[in-house]
Amino acid sequence: MSRALDFLTEALRRLPGVGPKSAQRMAFHLLQHDREGAAQLSRALYEAVDRVHHCALCNTFSDTEVCELCADPERDRTLLCVVETPADQMMIEQTLTWRGLYFVLMGRLSPLDGIGPRDLALDKLVTRATDGVVAEVVLATNFTNEGEATAHYISEMLKARGLQVTRLARGVPVGGELEYVDPGTIARAMLDRRGA
Amino acid sequence: MSRALDFLTEALRRLPGVGPKSAQRMAFHLLQHDREGAAQLSRALYEAVDRVHHCALCNTFSDTEVCELCADPERDRTLLCVVETPADQMMIEQTLTWRGLYFVLMGRLSPLDGIGPRDLALDKLVTRATDGVVAEVVLATNFTNEGEATAHYISEMLKARGLQVTRLARGVPVGGELEYVDPGTIARAMLDRRGA
Ligand SMILES: [Zn+2]
Ligand SMILES: [Zn+2]
Repeated sequence: MSRALDFLTEALRRLPGVGPKSAQRMAFHLLQHDREGAAQLSRALYEAVDRVHHCALCNTFSDTEVCELCADPERDRTLLCVVETPADQMMIEQTLTWRGLYFVLMGRLSPLDGIGPRDLALDKLVTRATDGVVAEVVLATNFTNEGEATAHYISEMLKARGLQVTRLARGVPVGGELEYVDPGTIARAMLDRRGA
Repeated sequence: MSRALDFLTEALRRLPGVGPKSAQRMAFHLLQHDREGAAQLSRALYEAVDRVHHCALCNTFSDTEVCELCADPERDRTLLCVVETPADQMMIEQTLTWRGLYFVLMGRLSPLDGIGPRDLALDKLVTRATDGVVAEVVLATNFTNEGEATAHYISEMLKARGLQVTRLARGVPVGGELEYVDPGTIARAMLDRRGA
């Protein structure tokens, strides 16, 4: 009927978890009931692609060269917490227990998905952790098989360079993903962090 | 962390069925793994908002004043089939049984959702059906309470203007075994029984 509508339906399928039926429902909804929302989403996507980069220090998404958190002079620059995703970082921030800085891997080692050490920003992490100021690196990857393997790999890599490396305590349930764990549990696990 | 990322996450929530967690997951996925997809979706949304209008005749989505189907000279212009959505229209087209034209309501009467006669293009339907060429209007709204109420409303409206109005037959589905069909359907099929 409409090529522009077909193009939109196809483009919506690029979103994770959106199949053909949902894509069609979304396209109809936007065109019939929320054209303002469609225009807003179009602009938001354009601006995000244009402006969002990775923080030069912690690797998280940032509109500026160095993100606000890394630029905060109140933070203890001798402590570095390694997480898989920005969502995990936000969860830890919400516990108000961490006064150090972060490094965001933007993923985890996952051989089954073809994600090896070269696909994570591990060189950037090494450079960051060996700046001569960082004294302790806390590994806060998820307690899944992949998260544990990632923590193990990073631990070996950083200990070989003389850094103190610790791991969140197993207050986090085995198999649990940080994003879905309550802040109290994460706070406990942060206090109980141990040598990795 | 990133205002552009926050803006994107918020805009993704305008999509039906997308909550805060999915919006965040979608935004991360696009920025980390599919910036090309994000740029494509941005363009598709822009173009859809810019180009997609309603066909002057059948009211479905169309990039042109009159859609391809309405412009097809092979179609029988004395027959008009009324459906709720473009998806319903596509389903009927796939059956290859309809040689007439369509009118797409883009919704149904739904008092609980605050959708009354004024929210559907009923004036447009009356104008279309009373063009002096249309002789029969087949109501193919869904067999839900809302679809039935919509069919009833339209039927009264068009019969008052001297048009022949019919409704898709209800009955036991093709291949259906009575034992597994709900009693309401069987009762309906019994009442609508026809010469064998
Ligand atoms: Zn940063
Ligand atoms: Zn049309």
